[in-house]
Amino acid sequence: MRRTLYCGELREHHAGQTVVLEGWVNRRRNLGGLIFIDLRDREGLAQVVVNPEAACFSEADRVRAEWVIRVEGSVRLRPADQLNAKLATGAVEVIAERIEVLAEAKTPPFPIDAGWRGEDDPHVGEEVRLRNRVVDLRRRRLHHNLRLRHKVVAAIYRFLDAHGFISVETPYLTRSTPEGARDFLVPSRLEPGHFYALPQSPQLFKQMLMVAGYDRYFQIARCFRDEDLRADRQPDFTQLDMEMSFVTQEDIIALNEELAAFILRETLGQEPPLPFPRLTYTEVMNRYGSDKPDLRFGLELQDVTEAFRGGEFRAFAGAEVVKALVVPGLLSRREIEALEATAKTKGAAGLAWARFENGALSGGIARYIPAHLPEQLGLTEGHTLLLVAGPWRKTVESLGAVRLELGRQLGLIEPGFKFLWVVDFPLLEWDEEAGRWTYMHHPFTSPNLEDLHLLDTDPGRVRAYAYDFVLNGSEIGGGSIRIHRRDLQERMFALLGIGPEEAQQKFGFLLEALSYGAPPHGGIAWGLDRFVAHLAGEESIREVIAFPKNKEGKETLTGAPAPVDEAQLAAVGLAVRSEV
Amino acid sequence: MRRTLYCGELREHHAGQTVVLEGWVNRRRNLGGLIFIDLRDREGLAQVVVNPEAACFSEADRVRAEWVIRVEGSVRLRPADQLNAKLATGAVEVIAERIEVLAEAKTPPFPIDAGWRGEDDPHVGEEVRLRNRVVDLRRRRLHHNLRLRHKVVAAIYRFLDAHGFISVETPYLTRSTPEGARDFLVPSRLEPGHFYALPQSPQLFKQMLMVAGYDRYFQIARCFRDEDLRADRQPDFTQLDMEMSFVTQEDIIALNEELAAFILRETLGQEPPLPFPRLTYTEVMNRYGSDKPDLRFGLELQDVTEAFRGGEFRAFAGAEVVKALVVPGLLSRREIEALEATAKTKGAAGLAWARFENGALSGGIARYIPAHLPEQLGLTEGHTLLLVAGPWRKTVESLGAVRLELGRQLGLIEPGFKFLWVVDFPLLEWDEEAGRWTYMHHPFTSPNLEDLHLLDTDPGRVRAYAYDFVLNGSEIGGGSIRIHRRDLQERMFALLGIGPEEAQQKFGFLLEALSYGAPPHGGIAWGLDRFVAHLAGEESIREVIAFPKNKEGKETLTGAPAPVDEAQLAAVGLAVRSEV
Repeated sequence: MRRTLYCGELREHHAGQTVVLEGWVNRRRNLGGLIFIDLRDREGLAQVVVNPEAACFSEADRVRAEWVIRVEGSVRLRPADQLNAKLATGAVEVIAERIEVLAEAKTPPFPIDAGWRGEDDPHVGEEVRLRNRVVDLRRRRLHHNLRLRHKVVAAIYRFLDAHGFISVETPYLTRSTPEGARDFLVPSRLEPGHFYALPQSPQLFKQMLMVAGYDRYFQIARCFRDEDLRADRQPDFTQLDMEMSFVTQEDIIALNEELAAFILRETLGQEPPLPFPRLTYTEVMNRYGSDKPDLRFGLELQDVTEAFRGGEFRAFAGAEVVKALVVPGLLSRREIEALEATAKTKGAAGLAWARFENGALSGGIARYIPAHLPEQLGLTEGHTLLLVAGPWRKTVESLGAVRLELGRQLGLIEPGFKFLWVVDFPLLEWDEEAGRWTYMHHPFTSPNLEDLHLLDTDPGRVRAYAYDFVLNGSEIGGGSIRIHRRDLQERMFALLGIGPEEAQQKFGFLLEALSYGAPPHGGIAWGLDRFVAHLAGEESIREVIAFPKNKEGKETLTGAPAPVDEAQLAAVGLAVRSEV
Repeated sequence: MRRTLYCGELREHHAGQTVVLEGWVNRRRNLGGLIFIDLRDREGLAQVVVNPEAACFSEADRVRAEWVIRVEGSVRLRPADQLNAKLATGAVEVIAERIEVLAEAKTPPFPIDAGWRGEDDPHVGEEVRLRNRVVDLRRRRLHHNLRLRHKVVAAIYRFLDAHGFISVETPYLTRSTPEGARDFLVPSRLEPGHFYALPQSPQLFKQMLMVAGYDRYFQIARCFRDEDLRADRQPDFTQLDMEMSFVTQEDIIALNEELAAFILRETLGQEPPLPFPRLTYTEVMNRYGSDKPDLRFGLELQDVTEAFRGGEFRAFAGAEVVKALVVPGLLSRREIEALEATAKTKGAAGLAWARFENGALSGGIARYIPAHLPEQLGLTEGHTLLLVAGPWRKTVESLGAVRLELGRQLGLIEPGFKFLWVVDFPLLEWDEEAGRWTYMHHPFTSPNLEDLHLLDTDPGRVRAYAYDFVLNGSEIGGGSIRIHRRDLQERMFALLGIGPEEAQQKFGFLLEALSYGAPPHGGIAWGLDRFVAHLAGEESIREVIAFPKNKEGKETLTGAPAPVDEAQLAAVGLAVRSEV
């Protein structure tokens, strides 16, 4: 007696056949002397009916929710009044002839049957779910998410294989790489006192592969960063990592947006129109106040610096930048105050405002607003005007945060997937604390060759060949063209305050590799967890990871991290510090 | 000016076209005033000819081996006397019009150009190759191997996706799992004094996925074992890991041999005949003296215990087992002595022998050999008879080692791929040291249900639902049907001397999961590095890994493992022991 098909595959054309199903009891009911069992497997539910005169009736009477059973029976069409339109199997049922219990089950800590019936599963707190992850993973929603994730990865393999990419595995026990986060260390037993580091990304290895002539590389790579856990971070996470030789930035962008479109087509049947918008860093910052703008709604920032320049409103008169947001609707004082708090988290001194009400501007700083401004901004009856003034970056980012908040509050966000590329990032930014320039992407990013002459005279104005891939307000990928000439790489290290000795010690093998003839190359890495979470419509990446860590970095299923034997520590030449 | 095709893609039908090629200078020669450049990319070589009158002649004269250049030129058929049949591009050449140097290169530490011309690369010691891995990776052989590896992985994705398998990533920062090797530890910073372990395999996580109903799982998974490095081990290595629910051992075997055949077809164009042989553990040990026999040659062991039982040759008369090998050829005393040394490494007391020469047996123990034995064994003129006697396992393994040695020495090994399955392994073996039974596969392996009655009375005779996948004398995979009932798993732990408390502490989450209703399930893991090495015809797995560790577990490229800052250690609450 072997399974003939999945429960969820049962259809009307099976009527009359004898089938064997295996799965979990989603629900068992005794109705009018008959026993109804909803039998569940990963494909869905099948209704099993056990008649009182069936030999297996007593066995059927014994089974409970979540028991694992095998059922042999004949398929028949359900009576017209018992059809269940919610289920793909809802037109048929199986009349049980034999039932075998494969495993009994205790009552699960929370019910998981409703989702499989097409209803909502009850809310369960995340800590309880993670502690009982095996039961939690039975929920239909997690089945959907993990299968979607598989489909995404399978589509990536198909697409990149067809486009000449070679998947190569890079080391997981390696040396510290300079992504800027803390490394996880792995003590060596063969060399006590020495440590491997878990890779923060395969960055330098993929560059080595380009230098070695592999031309097109990819990897679904696990990466490790020992960062303080923010709400939605994991200490180990997954990147789609990619690198190409003899290409320009536009080649990489074009291929990756084709890949994104291919994935959406293969997994969700959607066809996002190509090409995706390419906007410069300066433009998205000015229009959306973010380097990863959510384009699912408008509500763009407008520049009103000139309108206030030298005017009577002192706070605005001399500001580097004044930015405005025209909000559809009349916001209350309380609403504006809440938005001001949001603006202040990004460094704004305050949030100025005025309302267009009863044919005129009133409230807030209404009397300081130049007469021509409403028309220029498209500000009319029923609108609220919000304004921030100050240094450029703080100003746009503050009002950008207000824009996002309003997008959510006012329900402006349209459903769907809005991709874009942000290009022309600055190569460097000024590190106030260290009093020197630091890289915005990583120290291997190539300057835009058109700006090379500014490298010594005006480094802040040098654009990078760097690009971010943005979806619905999240950065889902980022990459750059890399420096492929040793002399330029050394110059960049110097500019970043990395002396020749430190460069040799940390990046000697890169410099050495570049000296053997490196092709122009560049690449990108996608945050796979985040991307899949977007496709699945989930807020948290923990919903698309089978066994995630909780917010304290613990794996609650197995109880990691945990203390280890003294002997294990001694073997690697380490001791726990007594002051701990 | 953008690349129009790969160098190695150039063919006769391109004649007359203008092309742009980019790549490395494999060789540059000045012949009769013309400059010939073999330009190389991952697809192969193209011959570039620079005429003295060309504007780019002086640039061409400057380039050296391994420089990266871009060439624009027109394709023409080579003169009939200059065809190169060794190269796919050997019928054409490119007349250079423009040449641009993209990167200069210093002379590589060893030449890598010959292989790309279809000749043999000179031998270079492995340590030198690993220290200069980026140059080494340019060799054609490594290009071939890594691309083969990619094709294998891409084929695995295609096959398993089409067969309903879902790829799921399992944690890399987790808790110690009981594969029997030492764990690599990862100190936690958020919880100083606590440690994650890197997984030795995803075993328990994949069982969890089966309990959660995912039915068919796979993963190309990195695994970590801190073992003393034997010649051909890596501290981090790769498994194709797989698990299926509601299946029998035969289902798993049948699917995996189909997968192997699919891979060979897709990557090498070979069609190994299916099904592969399934031989029991007892049979392969008796016939080949190995649980991973090399079936590329015969030379089987024969049982002659009864022929000597109670006879005059004391050493054999009372032996548990006497095994014979009939060797085609007359071995010298010195050869026999060398083989005896091999036999003794596996525990044999000695290697008895006789030669069939000039119509009769002579030498060694010839006079003790029963008269009927030569005919029974097929022993005739020109053969040498080798014999080992003693306890069963030591005897067959000793003579098995001799068989392997002779297979190589006598050139008996046929080319090709000989797969087989070894089944019916014993569930348990007696641990002399500990004085108790221990598992042969792992503690989650299901006993053969037919032998369940022996579990308490005669545990050594209980067969397991365990199977090894063997290719050309290597175990390339191993798996089992797992225990899916909590009561049986607890009984197994008890038999293995794992008390209820220890079981709860180490495997509590498995027992808990089994209590929520687990389906019958089983799986397998392939050693991907080893499998690909076989397909590539390589002895060492380091030849199919882009950045392997050397024999001391060091990554010579980046210099891992390395000392770390005191501050990094302090952050995880550890100190290096002073006595180190």
